[in-house]
Amino acid sequence: MTPVPIAFTRGVPPLEAVPVAELVRHTHEALAAEGGSMFQYAPIGGYRGDALLRELIARRHEEPDPDAVFVGNGSLQVLGLLAAHLLAGARSDVWVESPTYDRALLTFMRHGARIVPLPLEGDGLDVDAVRRLLARRTPAFLYTIPDFQNPSGVTLAGEKRRALADLAIAKGLRIVEDSPYRDLRFRGAAPPMLRELAPDQVFTVASLSKVLSPGLRIGYALADPATTRSLADMAANVYLSPAPLPQAVAARSLASGLVTRSTARACDLLRPRHDRAVAALRRELGDILVTVPDGGYFLGVQLPTSLGEDALLEAAASVGVALAPGSAFFAPSAPRPAGQLFVRLPFQALTPQRFADGVRRLRTVALPATKAPVNPRIEREEVIK
Amino acid sequence: MTPVPIAFTRGVPPLEAVPVAELVRHTHEALAAEGGSMFQYAPIGGYRGDALLRELIARRHEEPDPDAVFVGNGSLQVLGLLAAHLLAGARSDVWVESPTYDRALLTFMRHGARIVPLPLEGDGLDVDAVRRLLARRTPAFLYTIPDFQNPSGVTLAGEKRRALADLAIAKGLRIVEDSPYRDLRFRGAAPPMLRELAPDQVFTVASLSKVLSPGLRIGYALADPATTRSLADMAANVYLSPAPLPQAVAARSLASGLVTRSTARACDLLRPRHDRAVAALRRELGDILVTVPDGGYFLGVQLPTSLGEDALLEAAASVGVALAPGSAFFAPSAPRPAGQLFVRLPFQALTPQRFADGVRRLRTVALPATKAPVNPRIEREEVIK
Repeated sequence: MTPVPIAFTRGVPPLEAVPVAELVRHTHEALAAEGGSMFQYAPIGGYRGDALLRELIARRHEEPDPDAVFVGNGSLQVLGLLAAHLLAGARSDVWVESPTYDRALLTFMRHGARIVPLPLEGDGLDVDAVRRLLARRTPAFLYTIPDFQNPSGVTLAGEKRRALADLAIAKGLRIVEDSPYRDLRFRGAAPPMLRELAPDQVFTVASLSKVLSPGLRIGYALADPATTRSLADMAANVYLSPAPLPQAVAARSLASGLVTRSTARACDLLRPRHDRAVAALRRELGDILVTVPDGGYFLGVQLPTSLGEDALLEAAASVGVALAPGSAFFAPSAPRPAGQLFVRLPFQALTPQRFADGVRRLRTVALPATKAPVNPRIEREEVIK
Repeated sequence: MTPVPIAFTRGVPPLEAVPVAELVRHTHEALAAEGGSMFQYAPIGGYRGDALLRELIARRHEEPDPDAVFVGNGSLQVLGLLAAHLLAGARSDVWVESPTYDRALLTFMRHGARIVPLPLEGDGLDVDAVRRLLARRTPAFLYTIPDFQNPSGVTLAGEKRRALADLAIAKGLRIVEDSPYRDLRFRGAAPPMLRELAPDQVFTVASLSKVLSPGLRIGYALADPATTRSLADMAANVYLSPAPLPQAVAARSLASGLVTRSTARACDLLRPRHDRAVAALRRELGDILVTVPDGGYFLGVQLPTSLGEDALLEAAASVGVALAPGSAFFAPSAPRPAGQLFVRLPFQALTPQRFADGVRRLRTVALPATKAPVNPRIEREEVIK
């Protein structure tokens, strides 16, 4: 008998964290109040609802100027437009954490980037490696996911943020800070955003997908007004106009406090899932966590195994466990330690019982012989050439 | 005193042609019936609402297979994905009508195309020129807007469509047929779509923006299933997922017959605007129309003037008339006749009185001296090198 499948694949929000009834109410309100304009083009940067949304997002991030906000159809598309903008100059190197978000890698490569992987540690990007590399050259930009990183769960420590911001200011380094999970913090205080520390050097990409609704497709960038204008000009040539109704619903959700309430609700739902997932992993597979995230969606593990990746995925599938290939999170040029396979385990959409069941199944195929404690962090091997 | 401004600029649908009350009703129905899934990701190609929408669009075009349909965020974005797909091979030439849609030109160039302009006649693309060129080489694709072309208003004649389809089949020519205005026909019978004549050679891009609502952002491609799958894969890496609510509203509008009714209503609104715009143009400026479109949004004229384009736009602005620069509709390499300037005059969003007023103002600055009849068609000058 095949067991009921368990998916450790993509980071789709659990529907029970989406405040459906209140979103429906805000949709009705938007239709009643704004009528016809909800079905017309929403001129990028010109539409009243869009302007209102930009103002509310600016306020959310304590940005003084609403023109510092560009809203697009989800943060991946915003990241693509920003990458195109930053790669339009002479520089084509993009420095990334290794591992990093797979679709970001694909996006940068589609825009002609040469990817340079940098070591990721349990407390985030190796800032000393950035410093050494900056002594020799400057990239088009450095891409980092500083909060509850996808796929590793790592958060960049406060002192490293300050060091990185100082470096960026001193050396003219441009940083793209991608932070969709930041507000899903289950405990502890958040370190400052990189953009707060170096506003002239840092472009922030964020989203309402994980704290309100992915179906509204509201992603945004925080940047200087010349950059947001350039993003709007590109967007007009790519998709002409966003759909106004989701933007109006998002604006009402920010204004009514729904985003704040649904963020708290999502944290309350995910906190026990996270805690029990960490416990189940340690119990079944030993100390193989890259870090204890205390937020976000993902646990990253270095699975000690003699299997190759294809064999691991096939073996996992044979016991009803779907895994995303960990290699997708590494640039083609990035070295990976032997005898281990990186695996991303999203916990947000599984009950603690299902997560534990999945980890037990994974153990039967990945660790048939031993359960010796292994290196809890990604190898600090020097990956810079 | 500055006169009230009149905009002859972009082709935005008139809001009175958008069936707002019925769209609001369908939105309420979708929220009531489909609930939470309206605020979740809509997996590209997998979501039930999306599958339903694809089936309804397939039926609308008498396509036997719903997998022949890919739905994206407006037809411009679909065109961009299709261009990326077709330009991924060894060929980079894209043949276009001259003039053609400005944002399509920008889209192709962004994806690395080399643009080759082909002559456009009063009855559409010069198919003999295509034949001569095909004897020597084959492009990545030929791009045509066969119905009520943007910007000229020209429709490709039935016999030319058959000749072009035969050529495409015989020579393996790939054609992208962009047809957002096709159903806005004010009189006469429509010639067949190119895809009906050569389904294996023709990729169709179309939209509900002009017959239902631009704000829903529903554009789509009709193509073989391998191509639509490739578009979906690319879309997943560009914007991850479309917003499900507008798709559900579009599906309900197709199923309820609203699209048919709102198309008829738009035609009834636009027919007199078209007829009186044609009459006003002839009365004030002589026989300068490229063609009498009998459909769509645009009249194209060749304005006999000694002014350069910048001077014309400035002079028009001084009498309160906003014009789009006609040069934007031509590839940089396309020759244009001397002593004339191509101008696109959208009539869909102006009352007949306002259109006539605009044309009268244009006359005072563009034709100060003479009103001699001029060539009613775009010069058949050979633009192929």
